[in-house]
Amino acid sequence: MISECQSLDMTAWTQTRLARVEQALSQWVGDGAPAGLGDAMRYAVLDGGKRLRPLLVLAAYEAVCSGATASEVHDDAALRAGMDEAALRAGLDEAALRAACAVELIHAYSLVHDDMPCMDNDVLRRGKPTVHVQFGEAQALLAGDALQAFAFELLTPDGSAIPAATQATLCRLLARAAGSAGMAGGQAIDLASVGVALTEDQLRQMHRLKTGALLQGSVLMGAACGHAVGAAYQALSDYGAAMGLAFQVVDDILDVVADSATLGKTAGKDAAADKPTYVSLLGLARAQAYAQELLAEAHEALARSGLPDTRALAALADMVVRRSH
Amino acid sequence: MISECQSLDMTAWTQTRLARVEQALSQWVGDGAPAGLGDAMRYAVLDGGKRLRPLLVLAAYEAVCSGATASEVHDDAALRAGMDEAALRAGLDEAALRAACAVELIHAYSLVHDDMPCMDNDVLRRGKPTVHVQFGEAQALLAGDALQAFAFELLTPDGSAIPAATQATLCRLLARAAGSAGMAGGQAIDLASVGVALTEDQLRQMHRLKTGALLQGSVLMGAACGHAVGAAYQALSDYGAAMGLAFQVVDDILDVVADSATLGKTAGKDAAADKPTYVSLLGLARAQAYAQELLAEAHEALARSGLPDTRALAALADMVVRRSH
Repeated sequence: MISECQSLDMTAWTQTRLARVEQALSQWVGDGAPAGLGDAMRYAVLDGGKRLRPLLVLAAYEAVCSGATASEVHDDAALRAGMDEAALRAGLDEAALRAACAVELIHAYSLVHDDMPCMDNDVLRRGKPTVHVQFGEAQALLAGDALQAFAFELLTPDGSAIPAATQATLCRLLARAAGSAGMAGGQAIDLASVGVALTEDQLRQMHRLKTGALLQGSVLMGAACGHAVGAAYQALSDYGAAMGLAFQVVDDILDVVADSATLGKTAGKDAAADKPTYVSLLGLARAQAYAQELLAEAHEALARSGLPDTRALAALADMVVRRSH
Repeated sequence: MISECQSLDMTAWTQTRLARVEQALSQWVGDGAPAGLGDAMRYAVLDGGKRLRPLLVLAAYEAVCSGATASEVHDDAALRAGMDEAALRAGLDEAALRAACAVELIHAYSLVHDDMPCMDNDVLRRGKPTVHVQFGEAQALLAGDALQAFAFELLTPDGSAIPAATQATLCRLLARAAGSAGMAGGQAIDLASVGVALTEDQLRQMHRLKTGALLQGSVLMGAACGHAVGAAYQALSDYGAAMGLAFQVVDDILDVVADSATLGKTAGKDAAADKPTYVSLLGLARAQAYAQELLAEAHEALARSGLPDTRALAALADMVVRRSH
């Protein structure tokens, strides 16, 4: 087991993964789409964002694979029988890269739709005009819809080395994380909560769905690409839940303490919209302490996963809590 | 081979399939969703619509299975080895029912988003107020998004008898039919075509994507549930393409000749919006003749499929062309 004290060059780790994800997104997104729609899809996805979700997919995948050979992590006997180690590994790597891009597409589509006038009516995102400002509302609506469909298309390539069971599992995890018992459900609760006094349990449930489900889903999809099972899968799931909730607590804090230029989006929105947040519920100091508690929970989950190298996942959780935007 | 002259009681055939689909949709849609969102999802899907796409899935599935045992149509050797005929058949039947519901969810979500003020701004659908009129625009946007995600969730049940390869294939077919090279792409072309003079080729391409892709996709998904291959699969694909285009030609005709009460939606919309249609391009008489040509093409494709019983598919194509709404 590699101790977390042994340093991982996280900057280098992140740069190589980001380069792969950006290259893949740039190659895939909008390909084959009618011109106007393709432009809006690419605008929504490319050249922006921290790519936290793709990094979580890749970090979880690598954590599961760390130390194992591809044939050890591969549970499809029929496929294993006919393929050598390198081909197997290539199939697993491709699944992880596609999963990384797919979660980012779901995230990007949710931002496009969230920013629309009938939702948050936001004109600024990642320091640029939002998609509906740039392309019109109708094109923004369609681009979001097409990005969601494309996420599932990316997960199910025809004639690839990705086992069918992995493709199906990835679609299942992503659909659940994105849908009415996940992200879309959380947004609906958010919508119904403006001006309403929520209990801490209700606020936690809203955030677990709205933001947490896709962050946790990213971790689970990475774990599924590496065919994690049993205790390791459960520990990664717990890590994803704690880190996902921490993300939203920190988001609530940043909405209060950061300015719009740093955030790349409008600051102070939640209070202006009379939305319940961790800061409005707990106060700033207790919200900050809660984020630290959740970070500790995430680290504990990694420690009990039994996986030999979870340093990238640990560093990503740190980044989630310590970020300034 | 069962001749198409031998009569199929299409009313009874349709009723039994519709009952199954309605029961499944009613059980599944909105389950586990937050109250407001679940209500909007159910409103969008239940109690309305001809369910043409689910019927196409089931008819194609039954055509492929006609005369074959479940183990003959089943290509997953590992699964076949461990299961008896009845269990195999149950898995195939479940896949077809889930696929039937999934295509209807995609269709329903597209109507919800299409009707929104930034798109067609329609207030009447299936004789009822549209979703955004009933629930507000934000909820309509989210309900559409959640319905799309739920379609893929339905196709990937955990621990079911549906082979993983079938689940992955169904997700692939549905994602392609719904996305930027399918339905969403066609809508984007439609959006860009208002007031523009299209050639017949451009109009055909727009309609093949906008409406045709999901109708053809329904046929292909049914065929995939029955593991159709080779010539039969290609013939069903050709049937789907011809029938799908015929659907849109007839839609264009009905927009001119029917009244709003019969249509259950606003008539005369295309001309009012200055949208190119088959009627505006070819005139009414030639558009009607073209619909008949496409119907004949669909029948010819069925005849060369080599499948013993394609009567339900034939009857559905007839219904598409002869419908009054």
